[in-house]
Amino acid sequence: MDKKSLKKLLESLDKGELSIDDVLERLRTLPFEDIGYAKLDHHRTMRRGFPEVVFCLGKTEEQTLEIAGKFLKRQGLAVLTKVSPELSSALKRRFKTKVQYVPQARMVFLGKTSERIKGKITVVTAGTSDIPVAEEAAVLCEKFGLKVSRIYDVGVAGVHRVLPSLPEINSSDVVIVVAGMEGALPSVIAGLTDKPVIAVPTSIGYGASFQGVTALLGMLCSCSPGIAIVNIDNGFGAGVFALSIIRLADSKK
Amino acid sequence: MDKKSLKKLLESLDKGELSIDDVLERLRTLPFEDIGYAKLDHHRTMRRGFPEVVFCLGKTEEQTLEIAGKFLKRQGLAVLTKVSPELSSALKRRFKTKVQYVPQARMVFLGKTSERIKGKITVVTAGTSDIPVAEEAAVLCEKFGLKVSRIYDVGVAGVHRVLPSLPEINSSDVVIVVAGMEGALPSVIAGLTDKPVIAVPTSIGYGASFQGVTALLGMLCSCSPGIAIVNIDNGFGAGVFALSIIRLADSKK
Amino acid sequence: MDKKSLKKLLESLDKGELSIDDVLERLRTLPFEDIGYAKLDHHRTMRRGFPEVVFCLGKTEEQTLEIAGKFLKRQGLAVLTKVSPELSSALKRRFKTKVQYVPQARMVFLGKTSERIKGKITVVTAGTSDIPVAEEAAVLCEKFGLKVSRIYDVGVAGVHRVLPSLPEINSSDVVIVVAGMEGALPSVIAGLTDKPVIAVPTSIGYGASFQGVTALLGMLCSCSPGIAIVNIDNGFGAGVFALSIIRLADSKK
Amino acid sequence: MDKKSLKKLLESLDKGELSIDDVLERLRTLPFEDIGYAKLDHHRTMRRGFPEVVFCLGKTEEQTLEIAGKFLKRQGLAVLTKVSPELSSALKRRFKTKVQYVPQARMVFLGKTSERIKGKITVVTAGTSDIPVAEEAAVLCEKFGLKVSRIYDVGVAGVHRVLPSLPEINSSDVVIVVAGMEGALPSVIAGLTDKPVIAVPTSIGYGASFQGVTALLGMLCSCSPGIAIVNIDNGFGAGVFALSIIRLADSKK
Amino acid sequence: MDKKSLKKLLESLDKGELSIDDVLERLRTLPFEDIGYAKLDHHRTMRRGFPEVVFCLGKTEEQTLEIAGKFLKRQGLAVLTKVSPELSSALKRRFKTKVQYVPQARMVFLGKTSERIKGKITVVTAGTSDIPVAEEAAVLCEKFGLKVSRIYDVGVAGVHRVLPSLPEINSSDVVIVVAGMEGALPSVIAGLTDKPVIAVPTSIGYGASFQGVTALLGMLCSCSPGIAIVNIDNGFGAGVFALSIIRLADSKK
Amino acid sequence: MDKKSLKKLLESLDKGELSIDDVLERLRTLPFEDIGYAKLDHHRTMRRGFPEVVFCLGKTEEQTLEIAGKFLKRQGLAVLTKVSPELSSALKRRFKTKVQYVPQARMVFLGKTSERIKGKITVVTAGTSDIPVAEEAAVLCEKFGLKVSRIYDVGVAGVHRVLPSLPEINSSDVVIVVAGMEGALPSVIAGLTDKPVIAVPTSIGYGASFQGVTALLGMLCSCSPGIAIVNIDNGFGAGVFALSIIRLADSKK
Amino acid sequence: MDKKSLKKLLESLDKGELSIDDVLERLRTLPFEDIGYAKLDHHRTMRRGFPEVVFCLGKTEEQTLEIAGKFLKRQGLAVLTKVSPELSSALKRRFKTKVQYVPQARMVFLGKTSERIKGKITVVTAGTSDIPVAEEAAVLCEKFGLKVSRIYDVGVAGVHRVLPSLPEINSSDVVIVVAGMEGALPSVIAGLTDKPVIAVPTSIGYGASFQGVTALLGMLCSCSPGIAIVNIDNGFGAGVFALSIIRLADSKK
Amino acid sequence: MDKKSLKKLLESLDKGELSIDDVLERLRTLPFEDIGYAKLDHHRTMRRGFPEVVFCLGKTEEQTLEIAGKFLKRQGLAVLTKVSPELSSALKRRFKTKVQYVPQARMVFLGKTSERIKGKITVVTAGTSDIPVAEEAAVLCEKFGLKVSRIYDVGVAGVHRVLPSLPEINSSDVVIVVAGMEGALPSVIAGLTDKPVIAVPTSIGYGASFQGVTALLGMLCSCSPGIAIVNIDNGFGAGVFALSIIRLADSKK
Repeated sequence: MDKKSLKKLLESLDKGELSIDDVLERLRTLPFEDIGYAKLDHHRTMRRGFPEVVFCLGKTEEQTLEIAGKFLKRQGLAVLTKVSPELSSALKRRFKTKVQYVPQARMVFLGKTSERIKGKITVVTAGTSDIPVAEEAAVLCEKFGLKVSRIYDVGVAGVHRVLPSLPEINSSDVVIVVAGMEGALPSVIAGLTDKPVIAVPTSIGYGASFQGVTALLGMLCSCSPGIAIVNIDNGFGAGVFALSIIRLADSKK
Repeated sequence: MDKKSLKKLLESLDKGELSIDDVLERLRTLPFEDIGYAKLDHHRTMRRGFPEVVFCLGKTEEQTLEIAGKFLKRQGLAVLTKVSPELSSALKRRFKTKVQYVPQARMVFLGKTSERIKGKITVVTAGTSDIPVAEEAAVLCEKFGLKVSRIYDVGVAGVHRVLPSLPEINSSDVVIVVAGMEGALPSVIAGLTDKPVIAVPTSIGYGASFQGVTALLGMLCSCSPGIAIVNIDNGFGAGVFALSIIRLADSKK
Repeated sequence: MDKKSLKKLLESLDKGELSIDDVLERLRTLPFEDIGYAKLDHHRTMRRGFPEVVFCLGKTEEQTLEIAGKFLKRQGLAVLTKVSPELSSALKRRFKTKVQYVPQARMVFLGKTSERIKGKITVVTAGTSDIPVAEEAAVLCEKFGLKVSRIYDVGVAGVHRVLPSLPEINSSDVVIVVAGMEGALPSVIAGLTDKPVIAVPTSIGYGASFQGVTALLGMLCSCSPGIAIVNIDNGFGAGVFALSIIRLADSKK
Repeated sequence: MDKKSLKKLLESLDKGELSIDDVLERLRTLPFEDIGYAKLDHHRTMRRGFPEVVFCLGKTEEQTLEIAGKFLKRQGLAVLTKVSPELSSALKRRFKTKVQYVPQARMVFLGKTSERIKGKITVVTAGTSDIPVAEEAAVLCEKFGLKVSRIYDVGVAGVHRVLPSLPEINSSDVVIVVAGMEGALPSVIAGLTDKPVIAVPTSIGYGASFQGVTALLGMLCSCSPGIAIVNIDNGFGAGVFALSIIRLADSKK
Repeated sequence: MDKKSLKKLLESLDKGELSIDDVLERLRTLPFEDIGYAKLDHHRTMRRGFPEVVFCLGKTEEQTLEIAGKFLKRQGLAVLTKVSPELSSALKRRFKTKVQYVPQARMVFLGKTSERIKGKITVVTAGTSDIPVAEEAAVLCEKFGLKVSRIYDVGVAGVHRVLPSLPEINSSDVVIVVAGMEGALPSVIAGLTDKPVIAVPTSIGYGASFQGVTALLGMLCSCSPGIAIVNIDNGFGAGVFALSIIRLADSKK
Repeated sequence: MDKKSLKKLLESLDKGELSIDDVLERLRTLPFEDIGYAKLDHHRTMRRGFPEVVFCLGKTEEQTLEIAGKFLKRQGLAVLTKVSPELSSALKRRFKTKVQYVPQARMVFLGKTSERIKGKITVVTAGTSDIPVAEEAAVLCEKFGLKVSRIYDVGVAGVHRVLPSLPEINSSDVVIVVAGMEGALPSVIAGLTDKPVIAVPTSIGYGASFQGVTALLGMLCSCSPGIAIVNIDNGFGAGVFALSIIRLADSKK
Repeated sequence: MDKKSLKKLLESLDKGELSIDDVLERLRTLPFEDIGYAKLDHHRTMRRGFPEVVFCLGKTEEQTLEIAGKFLKRQGLAVLTKVSPELSSALKRRFKTKVQYVPQARMVFLGKTSERIKGKITVVTAGTSDIPVAEEAAVLCEKFGLKVSRIYDVGVAGVHRVLPSLPEINSSDVVIVVAGMEGALPSVIAGLTDKPVIAVPTSIGYGASFQGVTALLGMLCSCSPGIAIVNIDNGFGAGVFALSIIRLADSKK
Repeated sequence: MDKKSLKKLLESLDKGELSIDDVLERLRTLPFEDIGYAKLDHHRTMRRGFPEVVFCLGKTEEQTLEIAGKFLKRQGLAVLTKVSPELSSALKRRFKTKVQYVPQARMVFLGKTSERIKGKITVVTAGTSDIPVAEEAAVLCEKFGLKVSRIYDVGVAGVHRVLPSLPEINSSDVVIVVAGMEGALPSVIAGLTDKPVIAVPTSIGYGASFQGVTALLGMLCSCSPGIAIVNIDNGFGAGVFALSIIRLADSKK
């Protein structure tokens, strides 16, 4: 029930066309969900610019194009993750200039956001193979105007390589740490900084790394208390979470 | 090498007792770790007031008392989690007035922090049994001056119970959602707010809940992208993470 | 916003104390959730008599009493599962005659339901140790007026023991099959009947039975397609599900 | 022992060729299984029209054709699930007009059922990728004459999208909810309706979704008691179970 | 339908009270399962003396007494495994002289078997803690007249300790090998003998032994092809399986 | 130390070239392992004809040919399992007439055994897809002269299909039951016969069947005590185990 | 065949009572295992002083005393791990002055070793709760004469605490690193030293630490290549392994 | 801060351009990490010649070439493991004569080490398929000058095949044992030697071998205390660990 029909209803009461009990009944039985929907839509507006994501692995090209289109229409900006070069081409054919492809992050941005958030994140990876996952977060945050500092390939096996980056890390608002294998880097970094650390386990590894499970468990059990974790390979999720933290800080200024 | 010995070294140079090359050599070869330690100590000072935690399950009373004492001395404020009433009594006998026991959170605060952070969190639980874990976060945040809103027992099975709390949730800086069983509540809430959502799986449940594993997995796989997760039953960790987010926002003002 | 305040609001409009726009604004901004709540309450009424459950394992006596009381007030009938004899006594002291304790099902019914559903279920167990879980379903269904036929201890190791019970099974509306260990009984029964079969794995067993996981997996992988499964030891859940099926059939008459 | 030989035996008694004891002995030792077979066949007839399923993943084309043919002969209607387009062509070449291919459900119906069941189900999916699994249930139920309402892509991350569908859901006899990732949708829906909810976990997801295990566990641990679960990706099984429920209700009229 | 009623039916035919077709119809529709039952009973008789087992862990004393009594009546010999000294006393109070308690095997034999099987088994354990599980098999086999040779505490860590026992092993009909921890002993022994080797994993161990899972997996993956495995700690099952092998050999003589 | 050098040593003693103590010393310190080898070889001879197996999955063609040749030379008969048609051709090119390829069992027999064992096994499968695993056992046993009865596709979902096969099963010496999915068939059959039942889980299934783990666990937890289990898909191992049982029985005659 | 009978055999040859061929035959067929035993015993002598271990958890006092006595007799020195104070008292009552109890390591040394190995190990723990496991290794190594340096409670969350200990670590022959929770400390240390690092996961932790599994997996997946791992809580095993390394180095001098 | 800028700072003090306090302040706040880096570099020099490894599975050719180049520059010697023939060709095209490809170990050595370590290892495998993993260790050790003895295909199923190799094993400094399936070989060997045994589980196997998990667990639970384990298929890691042990022994001479 939108504002207009609600007004109409009240006018009918005002004009005496409907009794109070009639209106009451209609209000009581009016489709709950529509009011809800309206309310929530209002709330959605406050969140405008926040991207909805299409996870592209295991979907056909046709499915992806259809979903992406639906998301684009729904929200203005859609983000596609795990995009192959072929898929990026197909997206360009369909959505033309609305497509921006970032190969190192395997992401496509479809449409625009006008939101600008001020702040800085540092994205750290343990190994070279973790970079594509890290770039998901990095590129997303840049899209929203954040400054992004990248510190890649500083695994725990060479913890001294982490130390020179401490000033950089400490000058950020949020740190995203991406690691596969034993996933110990977030613990080490969280022990050296007081910034919020978002840990992203990756499926990089072999044998007992179990496609990222070991990294995930290690991060969950970190003895450094200032860490929160997202799903395996979910660089995008870490980026959204970082955005939500910094947007909050930004809104307080 | 502490400040004093460093000063001495430079005075020797100043007095001509040592050549530049001598001092250079000593500096280059001076115990790396001591400089490091000093530097980090300096850095630690900036973090002063941040509590170190003693996890009390599976430790003897004597061990706990000893570790707590060490932590207290090291940092001024120690936090003990999962504290039984008996243990709290033993702590009071040992540390007297420095002990503050919060039974509903099964926590003891030992010592003080003078840090005050401005902001508000909402702590939500799915069930009644999740409350002690939630209180760990709530009580910790209150200790640092945050306003804490508690919304307890609004599980997914009655999602309509969540909706009335949306305004409360949306007026917070950070939301902590605590749930056992299928752990779906954080997904639902993150879909309704744009605040950072920290999800805490609990070991509440039976059968296929596997002591919190199902809740943990469900939270990791949430399709709502604005969620980060901490270890099972780690309400304290969620509290620390929330503190680090709001301290950031607070520092921007 | 309950009916009364809604009426008041409309009366104010009717009396001219408020303009249409005022009321409109109030309605638009009235707590969304309250309308929702009202609507859902209405919907709840349709479901009246449906019990809310308190799972008693791992809760203190005091917690259980408090939750049970809350549930009783909320819905008229509360059901407590996995109730120890001690707990049942405590409940009787608190809630007096409202308590009905069924020891073989380890359940307490608190309050009443006036709903009566016509139909019949058969509850089958593989072993003697599965009976308490089976009784959860059986006693719950009897509470709602269903005829319950019990066929206990007819495990797969002696499949011929199942066959004589086929006519009984085939004369039921729904069959609930409760089994631990390898959990094969539901497969066997579903292959012999066309009635809906609800399978309940139990934690009975040792070694590779892994507290019911093996039974659960076996039931999920049944090659008989007419089976649906509930959580390990969740006899109550199976009972509720059976009720919902038969209530449906009953409503069609 | 078929009817004919049984008759012969009795005639011999009647003619005095065999004594009562002789016949008794023969009856006692006559092949148990043949009588059994006959009896069960009789019982089977009552179930006629119920489809037997061929799960096509991991089978060669030749194997599938052979099994399908066997099933077709055995029961009149065979259903093949997870059918690739290539396989559907091969089936058409072999079984000609008896083949009906439904690509969106990846199913082939081979032969016919004359059974008609009256009722309505609603099939809900959390995401777009869950649709093929959902269609298995939807198409099967339509085949038997049920009205099927499809509500697709209403994941928990946007729970408000579920609410407008409540009237539709509440007007159904059975609800089938299909979800991957954290699998929370069935909990949410079961908390809002009193209809039987059949939950189907799907293997959609990545990282900690573990090919549907997380969704499965989440559904099993749902705090909403009116849910029963089938195997991962087993849309067909959910459909059969729904059919068995509604057939029951239908038979009561 | 028991023999008596069957006879009555035939007499009615004989007396002309019923036509052949009448009897035919009654026979065709007589409760399938009763004939079946009779047949199977006949078959059961052939197996008489085979013990039915009561697994006593996790059962109350009262439950155990009741089940044991039922089994005793059903088959003449019941075997109870994992029996505590207290339970054995309770059994003696109830069943008097029918109880034989073997403490080292934690077993009680209730009643008698007159079957005598000729042959020999060797029972080998890796460690001292595996002995109670081994004794379950040993004592059961002795009960049926088998010669039992015990070779205990010859773990793989000292494989040379196995070698002196080879002649003993090779003079047996069947070898039962009981091992916890890494469970490698069956592999080693099966590589040195051509006798059937039954492997019993035990829950002995700590850390990565996971209550017998590691031993179980190791035995399943043995590269020695002449091994078959039973459940963790299921010494009784191994004994029954050994009996069935040797009974077969014995029957050929 | 081979026979020749041993003889030489004794001749030296005999000729007085070495004292008794010298020979004693040499014997005591002679390479332990060589004598051992000889002894064991002697023992091996007693086991002559027993095939060594090459598991071909995941090996290159060249590796397989080399290993097969080594095994052929070592023992006269090598058996290759999981052989693709291409590999069988390559084997024929290399080993010519020594190769016998059995496609339905995906096995190649390389060389010969002259051993003949008298007896009969029945091989049962739950589904059509389990047949190749079953054929590994069947073909191997036939190779050694056993009579093999095949009862395929009698899954638990239609337990009545098992019953007519009981006489066949009961006339065998050993029953091998092959099943994927929930793996319940061995339980059912072991409950109906007193023959040793060897259970083979297969990796057939989907979703919660976890590549045979569910079938494996179900078989391990069978409540029928006369069952022993081999590794997933290890039809060959079951065959070898059956051979060892029947060889034992055969040797007693 | 012991030395004496072997001598007798050779004397018979010498005396002409047996021909060379006779002796040859006897030697060829003499019990393989006895010669083997003798040889291995000889080899054992070279290892004399190496302790055999009794793992005391889950054993009764009586069992432990018996096994310990057997081990003591077998090898002169027995080591008991995970010893409770009560058990240590019982051991003292039985074995008197032969018992040395080390409470912080929960170990008892029974008997003596005269072996002295020169070298130094450093034992590092991540937390205070890991100390008892670490002490198992430390005390064992001291028993054999090694210098042991203890660096306790330097977890990864404060990696700067590790750095000051580098010179100590680098002056050792072997480093044993003991850690629970995420188990990252060995990675960090192995990245900073070129000494062999033996990693010991402990069962310390909660939630997703799964009784040491997470620490174990993390250590296995360490990106630092110079690490080897022992079982969860197996400090003793790490000590034995360190001894074997340093004994090797010591023997080269 | 490099040496040059440090000198400049001291010169400024010497010249009176800066006060002692100024210099002190600058030193205190000079980038900690640079000094650290220098120190650690110094430490690194001591470790010169130690290879850094590139794990090539799951990396693109381009990624591998880039990382390999970076590692080559960083340390003089890079080792690539799991190298396909195609990749080795690409490496040769890029790095020319610096590439040495060892196909049986699937390894490439890029660049040189001048370090020479004296000693001997024995590498043992259970099966033929384990050889490539074993060769990783063997070839690496040879590269550093070690003598390597290879004993391949002596699985536990034929433990007598191990015994003849004992003298070879006992003449080594370190034994590396590589095994898949049940992984029992290290236990057996460690029970027969007092040399340090490094166990490498491999992913060889099928069914319940779970890609090496069973072998890994078995090795961890070995009752032989002188064993340490590395990750599944990590032959290279075992080689590095062996090098570190023997380097230690070598340095003591």
